[in-house]
Amino acid sequence: MSGRVFGELPGSRGGRRFGTRAELSEAGLHRPRVAGISGSEKEGADSIVLSGGYEDDEDRGDEIVYTGHGGRDVQTGRQVADQNFRGGNRALALSSLNGLPVRVIRKAGAASHSPAGDYRYDGLYLVDDYWYDTGRSGFRIRRYRLIKLPNPSHAELTVSEERGAYSAPRQASTITRIVRDTEQARRIKALYDYECQICGIRLVGLAGPYAEAAHIRSLGAPHDGPDVSENILCLCPNHHVLFDHGGVAVGADLALIGAVGRLTVHPKHQIGAEYLRYRRKHYGAAPCSNR
Amino acid sequence: MSGRVFGELPGSRGGRRFGTRAELSEAGLHRPRVAGISGSEKEGADSIVLSGGYEDDEDRGDEIVYTGHGGRDVQTGRQVADQNFRGGNRALALSSLNGLPVRVIRKAGAASHSPAGDYRYDGLYLVDDYWYDTGRSGFRIRRYRLIKLPNPSHAELTVSEERGAYSAPRQASTITRIVRDTEQARRIKALYDYECQICGIRLVGLAGPYAEAAHIRSLGAPHDGPDVSENILCLCPNHHVLFDHGGVAVGADLALIGAVGRLTVHPKHQIGAEYLRYRRKHYGAAPCSNR
Repeated sequence: MSGRVFGELPGSRGGRRFGTRAELSEAGLHRPRVAGISGSEKEGADSIVLSGGYEDDEDRGDEIVYTGHGGRDVQTGRQVADQNFRGGNRALALSSLNGLPVRVIRKAGAASHSPAGDYRYDGLYLVDDYWYDTGRSGFRIRRYRLIKLPNPSHAELTVSEERGAYSAPRQASTITRIVRDTEQARRIKALYDYECQICGIRLVGLAGPYAEAAHIRSLGAPHDGPDVSENILCLCPNHHVLFDHGGVAVGADLALIGAVGRLTVHPKHQIGAEYLRYRRKHYGAAPCSNR
Repeated sequence: MSGRVFGELPGSRGGRRFGTRAELSEAGLHRPRVAGISGSEKEGADSIVLSGGYEDDEDRGDEIVYTGHGGRDVQTGRQVADQNFRGGNRALALSSLNGLPVRVIRKAGAASHSPAGDYRYDGLYLVDDYWYDTGRSGFRIRRYRLIKLPNPSHAELTVSEERGAYSAPRQASTITRIVRDTEQARRIKALYDYECQICGIRLVGLAGPYAEAAHIRSLGAPHDGPDVSENILCLCPNHHVLFDHGGVAVGADLALIGAVGRLTVHPKHQIGAEYLRYRRKHYGAAPCSNR
């Protein structure tokens, strides 16, 4: 994991200003000194700089349509070739797949929402969507929609707006799936190579494989389950829904309840019997569920 | 859908006070005049009142552990029997399954976070989790964890906090899946009886079936796809992930790309060829994705 840090850094809150890219890099907010995207294809992207260099960027403040990197002429800065799905471009897609927060830094004069001088750290965004398009210059560009996380000091937050039964007729926009992983969760998913412990399926998107980490005894109050590997399962989204909502459970002998077969368990993964017991005791179709 | 309204009502913002349950009911914030939970097993719960009547409730302000209804002695208010998974209790679970927001009203004196007088509407919460437990009186009770949506006037928001690669060592808590449906999305899911149009699977949890609505041409800027049935697919979570992240696509002839077979389409569901075309043009493993 190379020490790449996603999300807020200690002492760095939105609004902090920096004179140069070197200072930004020193602070750890955006390590590369030239590239606009900080990230790797294996880990995802942790920060971007909106420098105003891309003619197809759109900065609406809380919503940014960001252009991937590559294909620009070094001298003129104009788009002269297609952009590929490698490096930072792919890293941003992986951040989207895994719901990783991206630090956004704006350069002075980059757009209407940019600060008056130099560089400003503007907090965390989620990569809500990514696609490709034909840019103004006629070349293929990668595009990303980033949405501001409203309250970085309090929690990681995600936006989901709706129309319909909801009264406010706003522009609708949905972030579907936000499973932000803990370090332990990432380890377990990697151990299983993203295969579901219940059905064995391995989902693969353009940016890589996808699975979800399910905590057996829930993390929040009043359960206060621990974030340890013994309390985590690697599941596909379908079985995560079923596990969370009483459609499938795991017995003491690891036999599945509500599905056929047994839970697949890697030799290096010790599952805590006490967490499974807690889950069976408090969740699912037990005593008072269908009276 | 009987006119049950989820989320904010026009003109009603958090903090508004009411003298009586009748006034709350008139305002539409919480229609039943006695029951603590407003909702049905088919639609979900749209509001609750924290009246302080349940000895097992825990009110931490932004986080509430709420007790289901039933099993209390009319005279003493004490728990004298187990609670079942019917009516409002099941409705709250359905709201959890579908990510529906629940209006929370606090009665004066109900808990430390309650207002000084009468009833106060305190905004929208999500049912993050539900389970059962043995209450103080030794009977089975249904419990629900509700988490405050931070900014109801701006958007529906969901909380997801993490440890690990994220620097702040806070109490971890995760809401996994927030697919808030539009009216059109609900219609399409009902039309397919929650069967995935790609694989045919139908997931069923304790509170009912579960599927997700995927907009073919995305709703938000810059795509601005419309929220109409022609632009919506009913998918299982697995295929929703794959659809959103380039793992599966739909051809002009409705043949699946990246999976075997064809998209299942109900005779009453006309899918817009222009939306599928937009999707194929801008998403997926096309020209610049793997160079």
